[in-house]
Amino acid sequence: MSFLDRIKECNAYDLADFRPFLVAGRRYGWVRHALAARLAEFRTVFNVDEAAVRLSDRLADFRARTDAVDQVVRVLESENVVTGRRNEYYPVSTGFTAPPLLAIERAAIPHFGVRAYGVHMNGFVRKADGIHMWIGRRAKDKHTYPGTLDNMVAGGQPMGIGVMENLIKECKEEAAIPEALARRAQAVGAITYCMDAADGLKPDVQFCYDLELPADFMPENTDGEIDEFMLWPIARVAEIVRDTREFKFNCNLVIIDFLVRHGLIEPDHPDYVEIVQGLRQ
Amino acid sequence: MSFLDRIKECNAYDLADFRPFLVAGRRYGWVRHALAARLAEFRTVFNVDEAAVRLSDRLADFRARTDAVDQVVRVLESENVVTGRRNEYYPVSTGFTAPPLLAIERAAIPHFGVRAYGVHMNGFVRKADGIHMWIGRRAKDKHTYPGTLDNMVAGGQPMGIGVMENLIKECKEEAAIPEALARRAQAVGAITYCMDAADGLKPDVQFCYDLELPADFMPENTDGEIDEFMLWPIARVAEIVRDTREFKFNCNLVIIDFLVRHGLIEPDHPDYVEIVQGLRQ
Repeated sequence: MSFLDRIKECNAYDLADFRPFLVAGRRYGWVRHALAARLAEFRTVFNVDEAAVRLSDRLADFRARTDAVDQVVRVLESENVVTGRRNEYYPVSTGFTAPPLLAIERAAIPHFGVRAYGVHMNGFVRKADGIHMWIGRRAKDKHTYPGTLDNMVAGGQPMGIGVMENLIKECKEEAAIPEALARRAQAVGAITYCMDAADGLKPDVQFCYDLELPADFMPENTDGEIDEFMLWPIARVAEIVRDTREFKFNCNLVIIDFLVRHGLIEPDHPDYVEIVQGLRQ
Repeated sequence: MSFLDRIKECNAYDLADFRPFLVAGRRYGWVRHALAARLAEFRTVFNVDEAAVRLSDRLADFRARTDAVDQVVRVLESENVVTGRRNEYYPVSTGFTAPPLLAIERAAIPHFGVRAYGVHMNGFVRKADGIHMWIGRRAKDKHTYPGTLDNMVAGGQPMGIGVMENLIKECKEEAAIPEALARRAQAVGAITYCMDAADGLKPDVQFCYDLELPADFMPENTDGEIDEFMLWPIARVAEIVRDTREFKFNCNLVIIDFLVRHGLIEPDHPDYVEIVQGLRQ
């Protein structure tokens, strides 16, 4: 296995399995054909044909669209099509800073193939023998990807809160990193990918941050989402990413990006150009 | 103007203006139609039709292909179609670490639309008021992009020399950076782009390095390619990149990548996702 395998796994999808999800005449997502057939039954909310799933134009503003779609999502939850409600609403918009046309419950976002945004933070320590990286193991009872390895801190980006503000909140909840320390985290870019997952299509963007931590800092999870933290030499982390699927799928890309930016994967790597391009598809 | 404008300028091309350049049945580049018509006259070297420029299959190995194309390039030089011979040969291959099928004089590479590789280094100093970046001004008599601003150190990647070895050589020639200091440069990724330039198509890859320099280090050009070096606050460098075309085209992308990796362009920038994706097309 290779770093490129991890990138390919995050970009495995076939748009032929989906049809466009349109709002006000513009595509904002992709709906799997089977779900499109079910959505067709909600005639006051969706206009569905072979070509597309269109949100009804009679729903003319943010509130009307959001409420109507949420009612459908609640029916889909009662049918166990959508699971794991978070009661966080994600925006549907043309871009991260653009005004949203509606908002959809986070758990339903992939079902509509709408782009979601998140933050992932590489927490690391510089020691005499090089970089060591803090790795979390997701709780066994977490709804998504239980028991897999994760970045030290990561979370979805809800509406109405800045990216740095969100990161500071996640730093506190997930690893008990005090705000003053969390504020030292540095934005370093973003990874993008598009994956056909069990719950739909994920054409997502994860904003990446690096935080160099003092050697004596010990993370502690406070929200029950992480079972344990490990501080591993970066070479060990790189091997796990390259050779296994132990990490949650998108964390692999965040770590590969870290390895590239810190000169731990170098231009003489035979896949270098494909790797750096593959992290942003 | 915006950072995105600089990225778009490096990715302005229309493949309808070119036809594929094939070697042994596979595409390795793109030739402008006018040049394709001229190449058609070298019947023992190229088979040209409306669809493609094919290197003759009678040229069966690296040496035969290289020599035959070089003879044509020398004719094109006598006609001032190809100018500025460097006497450096660039490989034509499926990838940076793949064995080359032939090599072509560097000055002729864009005429064949073959991917070229190079190294660009951000030399910077951390001061109390933040990062300052060393910027070079290209010599007024340099054949390509005379008088424009440039990264502290940059150069093409010739055959038969490692990327780091090449960077160390360029560090010495362009800025008199001693080898021990140059070895501290860290690989941080690559930018890729495809630009229709006066001399052809440039679908290129530039490997990027960061080197943090001591505050008292003073660069000195030794090969006549740089007229002067300036140490500027990074905010001033960012403004010049964003608002002007004073930098050589691809240096803009190297600096934008630096700004992203060092948290100087952040996720709340309205073009953030387009910028990070645009640096690797």
